[in-house]
Amino acid sequence: MSSYRAPVRDLAFTLQAVAGIEAVAATGAFPDYDADVMGAVLEAAGQFSEEVLAPLNRVGDQKGSICKDGNVTAAPGFADAYRQFAEGGWTGLTAQAHSGGQQMPKALELAAYETVHSANMAFGLCPMLSLAAIEALEAHGTPSQKEIYLPKLVSGEWTGAMVLTEPGAGSDLGALTATATPRGDGTYALNGQKIFITWGDHDATDNIVHMVLARLPDAPAGPKGISLFLASKFLLNDDGSLGERNAFHPVSVEHKLGIHGSPTCVMSYEGAIGELVGEPNQGLSHMFVMMNAARLAVGVEGVGIAERAYQHALAYAQERKQGRSVWTGQPNAPIIDHPDVRRTLSVMKAKIAAARAICLSTGTAADLARHAATEEERKRWKGREDLFTPIAKAWSTDVGCEVASLGVQIHGGMGFIEETGAAQYYRDARIAPIYEGTNGIQAMDLVGRKLSQDGGQAAKDLIAEMKATLTQLPALYSGKPVERMANAIEAVEDATLWLLDAKADAAKAADVLAAADAYLKLLGDVTGGWMLAKAALHARAELDAGQGDAAWLEGKITLYEVYAANILGHASSRLAAVGQGGALLERMSLEVLAG
Amino acid sequence: MSSYRAPVRDLAFTLQAVAGIEAVAATGAFPDYDADVMGAVLEAAGQFSEEVLAPLNRVGDQKGSICKDGNVTAAPGFADAYRQFAEGGWTGLTAQAHSGGQQMPKALELAAYETVHSANMAFGLCPMLSLAAIEALEAHGTPSQKEIYLPKLVSGEWTGAMVLTEPGAGSDLGALTATATPRGDGTYALNGQKIFITWGDHDATDNIVHMVLARLPDAPAGPKGISLFLASKFLLNDDGSLGERNAFHPVSVEHKLGIHGSPTCVMSYEGAIGELVGEPNQGLSHMFVMMNAARLAVGVEGVGIAERAYQHALAYAQERKQGRSVWTGQPNAPIIDHPDVRRTLSVMKAKIAAARAICLSTGTAADLARHAATEEERKRWKGREDLFTPIAKAWSTDVGCEVASLGVQIHGGMGFIEETGAAQYYRDARIAPIYEGTNGIQAMDLVGRKLSQDGGQAAKDLIAEMKATLTQLPALYSGKPVERMANAIEAVEDATLWLLDAKADAAKAADVLAAADAYLKLLGDVTGGWMLAKAALHARAELDAGQGDAAWLEGKITLYEVYAANILGHASSRLAAVGQGGALLERMSLEVLAG
Repeated sequence: MSSYRAPVRDLAFTLQAVAGIEAVAATGAFPDYDADVMGAVLEAAGQFSEEVLAPLNRVGDQKGSICKDGNVTAAPGFADAYRQFAEGGWTGLTAQAHSGGQQMPKALELAAYETVHSANMAFGLCPMLSLAAIEALEAHGTPSQKEIYLPKLVSGEWTGAMVLTEPGAGSDLGALTATATPRGDGTYALNGQKIFITWGDHDATDNIVHMVLARLPDAPAGPKGISLFLASKFLLNDDGSLGERNAFHPVSVEHKLGIHGSPTCVMSYEGAIGELVGEPNQGLSHMFVMMNAARLAVGVEGVGIAERAYQHALAYAQERKQGRSVWTGQPNAPIIDHPDVRRTLSVMKAKIAAARAICLSTGTAADLARHAATEEERKRWKGREDLFTPIAKAWSTDVGCEVASLGVQIHGGMGFIEETGAAQYYRDARIAPIYEGTNGIQAMDLVGRKLSQDGGQAAKDLIAEMKATLTQLPALYSGKPVERMANAIEAVEDATLWLLDAKADAAKAADVLAAADAYLKLLGDVTGGWMLAKAALHARAELDAGQGDAAWLEGKITLYEVYAANILGHASSRLAAVGQGGALLERMSLEVLAG
Repeated sequence: MSSYRAPVRDLAFTLQAVAGIEAVAATGAFPDYDADVMGAVLEAAGQFSEEVLAPLNRVGDQKGSICKDGNVTAAPGFADAYRQFAEGGWTGLTAQAHSGGQQMPKALELAAYETVHSANMAFGLCPMLSLAAIEALEAHGTPSQKEIYLPKLVSGEWTGAMVLTEPGAGSDLGALTATATPRGDGTYALNGQKIFITWGDHDATDNIVHMVLARLPDAPAGPKGISLFLASKFLLNDDGSLGERNAFHPVSVEHKLGIHGSPTCVMSYEGAIGELVGEPNQGLSHMFVMMNAARLAVGVEGVGIAERAYQHALAYAQERKQGRSVWTGQPNAPIIDHPDVRRTLSVMKAKIAAARAICLSTGTAADLARHAATEEERKRWKGREDLFTPIAKAWSTDVGCEVASLGVQIHGGMGFIEETGAAQYYRDARIAPIYEGTNGIQAMDLVGRKLSQDGGQAAKDLIAEMKATLTQLPALYSGKPVERMANAIEAVEDATLWLLDAKADAAKAADVLAAADAYLKLLGDVTGGWMLAKAALHARAELDAGQGDAAWLEGKITLYEVYAANILGHASSRLAAVGQGGALLERMSLEVLAG
């Protein structure tokens, strides 16, 4: 079994050369951050992931967590690893200093967490959900809630859980039915059953803070009648110590395809005491504030699982010997010396690099949307963050599944045997396109909301930047790699203008939705290629300046070519699918589909 | 949980309208076959699959088989189901009449077995491997071997197992090391360990016939020193009754990602008594005779698992209600009324129809390659069979994985929960791109051998037929659906001519291999589209003649449009990847890949 090596150099390169983290540092909002700190954080995160988290990945899959007598016990070793993780400060990287956080850029946290998800995706979900709870409280908590709960969550002494889904309310949260009844003392009694509650219960910390969506009495039906509540697993005494257990508990943990180490709880709230967070009936919009961050975090999971699967396959391709290599002439050659295996690994690497660049660039956009110097700049970066978030989530998690599947394939028959390990990545990866809004929901969000904000300015700005990069490419490549980018950008532009027009015409609502998936994939494919081209240009500049590891930098230049040959060509096909129209799909009636 | 419904109407339509089974019947080689028999066989197979095999699919996954004390016990219910299957005559559909077979066309058997694989892929492997053993004996057995073993295998009283792979010999069978030592009485003592032996042991029948590859003493090294042997689990007494147990046994069954109901055995041969089958040192070429059939059968597995996953998702999309439909205006609408879900289901259906058409057309080509009237026709059909086989295997099994994954996605969070059932299809499907030659091996076989046979005549004939269909399309469609086919055919032609040239130049060996995967996908995408176009034209003709179910036939016309909008556009991208060249991949050195 291969061991995981955190791609620290590539994470740092991507943050600097593609995602532009220097601009984040230049805002002055991150006083303790500089390039050396970045390097140290990535090194330390990578080491923790390699040494503590990766060795637990297998046992988490095999043993999973156990729910018994209303308590969940985490998979063997997970609780202890979590405590080490918290002690290392990894739960407070981006939190505000006054809550005990280190106030680092979001983009750096994402890069550090990629290594966590690579090492142990089931583990990574625990702090990921805590971060969402921290963000919810920072944005909407009362001063008292912030004072009581934030330091505990930031230090990792407690974890947070997001409690949204119900059996009848998944993609459509507006349908949820859990209730919150005022108890007369300013608190509420929460009742209802919730499902898919990630790390909803466990034994890694003494307390768990649940952020629960429920309906107040007489709240309007649908999405505008949902409020956000905080319910602590243990009620707090006046001195802040833990008191009685609150009236909610896990009913069971789900038997899932993957991420067995992550307890996915069915939770029952039976008069649990909760506090209102934010405004009554504003629960969904409060959650939407956090949703960009959570979706981006899931995109990074896609990158992480892909990287792990890739490393595993790369190691096997060097060990496994079969047949004669057409390159070396060697009989019984390592399969990496067969062109089709080399191509597969190359495409895997190119897609991972593209997804990593998209996610980290979304991270810097989010940092700049908050902290750039001017209102105008912040607005521009907010547009970029909004446009990129559904792409980062959906495109990267699709890459996670695809790369994990290719990883199985490279192992041949051994890939199908669980002991080999490749199959776990294939199983684990499959959740990421589903949760935090399915990738279909992401695509609808992209064409339905994000694209048309501000008249489509964010997409137009992106296309302009792509064109600017295109003018630089002939210095690096000739012929096909340049033509393919030109054609791809043209496809993005055509599709974008078509969609912006269609979006303005209510009669074309179904056409827009029919285009959603293809448009997201188009934008992902081309944005990824553009970012690899930017990386190649940066590498060239470093080479010209005589800096860095020449072979590694040359690799960046080659990687764009691989991407251009194998992926950029999809753009024209995506454009065709963008234009398929709703009427065609309407003709695919139930009678036809079931026929 | 949805129940499986065999797509009998579509199987019959595909056999007739696309695969051209009438031409097979017209050869006169199948005296008991006619269209009514076809209908009856498909109905009966479908019913058996629905009623007996489908209900065992889940328990097979959950319980699997058990290996204990040198014996494998099949998953609960499987042994009994197998005996019913054999009694129903399903193990002898295509075998020769003198062995007790029904002498039906191969294409019909494939269509019937699609329903078996849909219902229970793990079960279907058992008779599938027996068919391969039957074919091996029919082609290479001595008269005595045929007399003793064929009737038992054809009746299903015994099963057959194919025993090829060893830990160091997978894709490269030439590396195998199992030995066969003459015992002086015309038999051989077989020694060695074999892995991945599907249904290598079980309790469904009294005896199992192993077809084993091993090396004779002083055999040449490599692929030319391998011979084929038959070893019966129980030695036969002179009266044909079962005697002592032979000296081979299962060591363990593998713990796999999927198809848990299929015992995948590690087998140990410890002086097992075997008979030579065919010529010494010709084992591999004897196996290659069968390999087309086995690979095609695996392609059909891909179709089968995709169909099952599709039906499961279609049922869920009608039950599950979330959000308002843009089409009906209904709140809390079934998700099938959301365009993105409808698009997903439509693409799934289109790909399944294309893969089914490719596999069944390969089946009729195989029938005609044996039985067409003239040597010239047989040669032409053999060329078609050879060209299509790697596509049927690889493209269809990729469709199996893709559709199973989309099926999970349509279920949202429930898709990740094992109880839902969708996850099993995702796990089961994953083996098919691996076994019987990985899809990478298929692609190399296509560009390395199949394409260039007879100067590329088979591909040239195919392109000519596609162009003939293209001239008919404007009667049915205007604009895009016609243009897309024209562009796609052009891409196939460009890629084919480029490859035929490159194949003739030894210096371009790596370029050809770098192109293999993309060329196979290109040919699959476009051949599938061409077949759906042929189906649409046939449907139009039936409609014009006032025959058949009008809505269903109209659906065939729409299905090609869906395929053209969503899949045919890939052709230009595949063409780009075909031309990427080996030098680019060589630059993706280990240093770059590991960097």
